[in-house]
Amino acid sequence: MGLIVQKFGGSSVANAERVFNVARIVTDTYKQGNNVVVVVSAQGDTTDDLIDKANEINPNASKRERDMLLASGEQISIALLAMAIEKLGYPVVSLLGWQAGFQTSSAYTSARIKRVVPDRIQKELDKKNIVVVAGFQGINKYDDLTTLGRGGSDTSAVAIAAAMHADLCQIYTDVKGVYTADPRKVPNARKLETISYDEMLELATLGAQVLNNRSVEMAKKYNIELEVLSSLEKEPGTIVKEAAKMEKMLISGVAKDKDVARVSIIGLPDRPGLAFKVFSKVSAANINVDIILQSIGRDGTKDIAFTVAQEKAEETEKILKDYLLPLGAKEVKADTGVAKVSIVGAGMESHAGVATKMFEALMDAQINIKMISTSEIKVSVLIDEADADNAVKAIHEKFFD
Amino acid sequence: MGLIVQKFGGSSVANAERVFNVARIVTDTYKQGNNVVVVVSAQGDTTDDLIDKANEINPNASKRERDMLLASGEQISIALLAMAIEKLGYPVVSLLGWQAGFQTSSAYTSARIKRVVPDRIQKELDKKNIVVVAGFQGINKYDDLTTLGRGGSDTSAVAIAAAMHADLCQIYTDVKGVYTADPRKVPNARKLETISYDEMLELATLGAQVLNNRSVEMAKKYNIELEVLSSLEKEPGTIVKEAAKMEKMLISGVAKDKDVARVSIIGLPDRPGLAFKVFSKVSAANINVDIILQSIGRDGTKDIAFTVAQEKAEETEKILKDYLLPLGAKEVKADTGVAKVSIVGAGMESHAGVATKMFEALMDAQINIKMISTSEIKVSVLIDEADADNAVKAIHEKFFD
Repeated sequence: MGLIVQKFGGSSVANAERVFNVARIVTDTYKQGNNVVVVVSAQGDTTDDLIDKANEINPNASKRERDMLLASGEQISIALLAMAIEKLGYPVVSLLGWQAGFQTSSAYTSARIKRVVPDRIQKELDKKNIVVVAGFQGINKYDDLTTLGRGGSDTSAVAIAAAMHADLCQIYTDVKGVYTADPRKVPNARKLETISYDEMLELATLGAQVLNNRSVEMAKKYNIELEVLSSLEKEPGTIVKEAAKMEKMLISGVAKDKDVARVSIIGLPDRPGLAFKVFSKVSAANINVDIILQSIGRDGTKDIAFTVAQEKAEETEKILKDYLLPLGAKEVKADTGVAKVSIVGAGMESHAGVATKMFEALMDAQINIKMISTSEIKVSVLIDEADADNAVKAIHEKFFD
Repeated sequence: MGLIVQKFGGSSVANAERVFNVARIVTDTYKQGNNVVVVVSAQGDTTDDLIDKANEINPNASKRERDMLLASGEQISIALLAMAIEKLGYPVVSLLGWQAGFQTSSAYTSARIKRVVPDRIQKELDKKNIVVVAGFQGINKYDDLTTLGRGGSDTSAVAIAAAMHADLCQIYTDVKGVYTADPRKVPNARKLETISYDEMLELATLGAQVLNNRSVEMAKKYNIELEVLSSLEKEPGTIVKEAAKMEKMLISGVAKDKDVARVSIIGLPDRPGLAFKVFSKVSAANINVDIILQSIGRDGTKDIAFTVAQEKAEETEKILKDYLLPLGAKEVKADTGVAKVSIVGAGMESHAGVATKMFEALMDAQINIKMISTSEIKVSVLIDEADADNAVKAIHEKFFD
């Protein structure tokens, strides 16, 4: 038996019944002789409700006070889960982020974990207590509360697992594991038994929001084995671990990301450094650019297209219009009616023809490709948003059926 | 110009509008050049809602986890108040009990403040910040959260005022001050300009729940001047201070307490020590006894009657029946249809006839007195609950009209 860290998201503890469900999973693990540290998020919509309360009073409230407010959400859920575990007759203690030793940077609302000093957790485990820890939160060098940003509870769990050399870190969610495609859209989607950290990272980036990216990065760095599994159905989930430890699959999944927009610059004067300046303007506004396509110059001008997150489309368009139209560019326009579909697989780097097979699937389904981007373990295409679900299905069939 | 501690209860911050009302009171005080420390309770029914949540999961949850849960209530209210003060354009910082230096005993749910180490508060005041502090909570020697029990925020405010030698501690409530009687019941009730600590203590004990008793005791001990005033109407309230500093009023108020029950023991065998054993049985069950009446022995038996809080009536009756009936007592019965009406006044110790005047008022109103108890600054009578409001009116008229 060993040390197991278990993390439960907000929907897993949304009401009293769910809280008891989690309490039973935790105490079952404890009964088997394991030391158990449980990381919990705020219940259901608590965080959103608190944000609404804040916005009603002051939409421009300081981030410090926002964190003070938000951190109360996990405080409620750890206390309730501890009470449920007490009710089942097991020894338990709940700890806030600062009590559990989460020291973070001072960047309120998106703090980074600097270190976890798990002395208190260890002391409680030595007393044979189940330890319930508030995810998502920590304390900075000023002794002020901080939060880690969305998905931070995953990171909290992996950080404890890393600091305490846990044997396993289980991330309980409302899905049974990591699938080859979204099972709600692709009936033949298969649950993966294992996936590598790198593949998981690509999938997370691509909108398959099973695991928070920072948590996967941290798990990779400290080589913590993760298991993604359902809190509602009792079956093994997907193990996320080092690629070297497993058979490389050709491709491990197909993912879709609708939160994307294409920004096009038509007729940009072909002056040295101007393309660089376009992207430095955009990044200065804290806007991340993904796929970039640049046409070959013609008539002393060229065209550039790139993708940004949908919510940044308008702002990007405005910034570039203000900057480029006076310099003689013909047109700047943003198009939000697009989606990105990607295949991910650690195996593809050693297999030629993966991209070709994907394009073939799309051609057969009569889906037009607008842009293409590739990395060692990923191929992404930009297509019309309306085609996205069909594209995922067509590609999934080509590779998995 | 000085240091002012202001305390606002849950109803004063119940919604966004009320929070802004408090923010304006606080910033008006700050604008006048004062250092301001604000102590806040949880919003409106938050604490009760949290207790409901706990009871749904585990009515027998440990007190440690209850405190972990309840302390989240003030965390929410301090953050929201700080956000409102930010919105009005003033520098502010919110602090939890442990950040504000509240070190308490380890008695979860009813912890005592051992000391307040206001280093952080002072540091923030030096930076010209308004400091918003979570009332009702602290931290014990195990670094665990504790709460002070009902009314604890008053005590938090006075404790800060004492630790920092504040010039004034204002307790904002939903009434305009301390009245000679309940103004909702007695139209002629007058607001007092000043009242002594001892009189305030008697009034608080008697059910005029304007101020928490522990807070008045602490204010008396450290000689902190309190002002009880309304958060909704802008006028001076009632100052609570040392009796020596003011004109002694003959009586300062009439109060009523319906939360009382009379327990009667009829035909108790007149054996030495038995009366003592009766009360030690009762106090062993943590039940407080107030007025005691003992008849002169007759036929080898005597009768004893005393009052307890209404919620303890049934338990007291059962304890004494189990103990006394086998010993030969004739009857033990509890009567909850009674009320206690009292007059309080530091002046009465030097004026004879105050009690007589009170009894006369009751006689004129044809109200029957069941029991009487007196102290140096108080006379209480036990009467039928149905007569309570009339009794208060009659006594008030006699002394104040």
